[in-house]
Amino acid sequence: MKILECVPNFSEGRDPNFLKELEAAVRPFPVKILDLSRDPDHHRADMTILGEPAAVEAAAMAVACRAVDLIDMTRHQGSHPRMGAVDVVPFIPIRGMGMDEAVVIARRFGKAFGEAKKVPVFFYEDAATSEARRNLVDLRKGEYEALPVKLADPAWTVDAGPQEFNPRAGATAVGARMPLIAFNVNLNCNDLEVAKKIANAVRHLGGGLRYVKAMGLRLEDKGIVQVSMNLVNYQRTPIHRAVELIKAEAARYGVTVRECELVGLAPIEAIQEVVSYYLQIPEFNAKQIIEYHLIPDA
Amino acid sequence: MKILECVPNFSEGRDPNFLKELEAAVRPFPVKILDLSRDPDHHRADMTILGEPAAVEAAAMAVACRAVDLIDMTRHQGSHPRMGAVDVVPFIPIRGMGMDEAVVIARRFGKAFGEAKKVPVFFYEDAATSEARRNLVDLRKGEYEALPVKLADPAWTVDAGPQEFNPRAGATAVGARMPLIAFNVNLNCNDLEVAKKIANAVRHLGGGLRYVKAMGLRLEDKGIVQVSMNLVNYQRTPIHRAVELIKAEAARYGVTVRECELVGLAPIEAIQEVVSYYLQIPEFNAKQIIEYHLIPDA
Repeated sequence: MKILECVPNFSEGRDPNFLKELEAAVRPFPVKILDLSRDPDHHRADMTILGEPAAVEAAAMAVACRAVDLIDMTRHQGSHPRMGAVDVVPFIPIRGMGMDEAVVIARRFGKAFGEAKKVPVFFYEDAATSEARRNLVDLRKGEYEALPVKLADPAWTVDAGPQEFNPRAGATAVGARMPLIAFNVNLNCNDLEVAKKIANAVRHLGGGLRYVKAMGLRLEDKGIVQVSMNLVNYQRTPIHRAVELIKAEAARYGVTVRECELVGLAPIEAIQEVVSYYLQIPEFNAKQIIEYHLIPDA
Repeated sequence: MKILECVPNFSEGRDPNFLKELEAAVRPFPVKILDLSRDPDHHRADMTILGEPAAVEAAAMAVACRAVDLIDMTRHQGSHPRMGAVDVVPFIPIRGMGMDEAVVIARRFGKAFGEAKKVPVFFYEDAATSEARRNLVDLRKGEYEALPVKLADPAWTVDAGPQEFNPRAGATAVGARMPLIAFNVNLNCNDLEVAKKIANAVRHLGGGLRYVKAMGLRLEDKGIVQVSMNLVNYQRTPIHRAVELIKAEAARYGVTVRECELVGLAPIEAIQEVVSYYLQIPEFNAKQIIEYHLIPDA
């Protein structure tokens, strides 16, 4: 059984009915909605769907088409970077399929969506057509507001859809990537500078771990600070290594870890590695979990 | 969906064809064989089957009937305590069902098996009819050889089957219990006394953790010693607590943990607690594992 995940992000986080619209668009398809949430500050929503590849691709198309009909980017202002109504559509291979298959699906989806809704589409991460477009941060530089200029520049020839600015829809980044793990480490400390220094030490940008993106944040309600991370390749930079490095750096300030948060979901392979490391079981395998055998084809 | 596990143990560990016989007996039923192994020293085999309750009960009956036909206890000698050809048959509720349902199944199975094969049956653990029979160690005291005397004693009135010694089959203990976790901690040390002292400190019998059974062993081939544990209630005495207590006791001898082994399988709830403890995620839930959602009805 092949299993694919898709996590489309939409530039609408304030209308409480919007999530119901997304849900209704996906309902006819045999996929599971693992997460559906919106953030008014970011003015952004995201949805996580899981299922067999054809069903996920069809559901993603239905929900993206619905969202692009509902959202008007000419009026959009939020704290999260964005360039389109359907801002990003990453496809993530979970089981029984490789990244190459996810890339094929992403590109086919991008072409169909771009043409159907007259939206300029750029491919990113493993679906990127050039190294310069691999990183979403580079791709989205200038955001929605820069699109008229970018689309007139030969360097920004679209990967799919029209080479023409669509004011209501903006542009969409469609990609294929590994599962990303969002992991927060809350510190027994209220000094934002400490959190920022630790974040910088652990992240790739600051000389730290290759597949860690991190920033220091203040959690106003709790009166503490946090190191908020994205682990973009949990196979090569596993969770425990990032957490233990944070603990080691925090120690120089006499700071300890108060608690951690796994935001959203993580693949079982990442959890397997956590158990293997902390319990010192070199050969620990998810197949040693009874419930693993309830998965069809496990 | 209700999911039940059954782990019958058989007094035959030397005939290489025996496991094939067990497998063939179970094959017609819609259950999964999670484990099937034998130990020549123990002269014992065990099988782990998983599936919906009715299928597991029927498969257990088929395999138990086949085994009792094949094994002759009058010639059995092995290092593991035993009292019957089909020595123990524990039913373990895994999902969507309570211990009460497993008890009903265990007792029904015991009655049907005892009558069909003329085997004296005693119920143990949660299926026990008296506190004195709850613990398998008490129930099995004197082993196969003591059965003629025990079966003549009114204190040992059978729970099912005939009150009559069956020389070929011996007697069978049928029970319902929680999943048991077999966990070994290997030490950087070759002093058996140290392993025994640590085992005694951590186990209930020695004043340690309530749901831990433990012993110190020598691993001849590795030249080290091991603390081998059975965690009989992982909800109340979780894995990490036993492991961390072993580390703390080992430290007094200047000994560290070399590695650990999870023998066989563990329920996801126990793995969830490991992740929650070591990563300090108070709310970590198995539903945060992507693959969890591939389980039907998850």
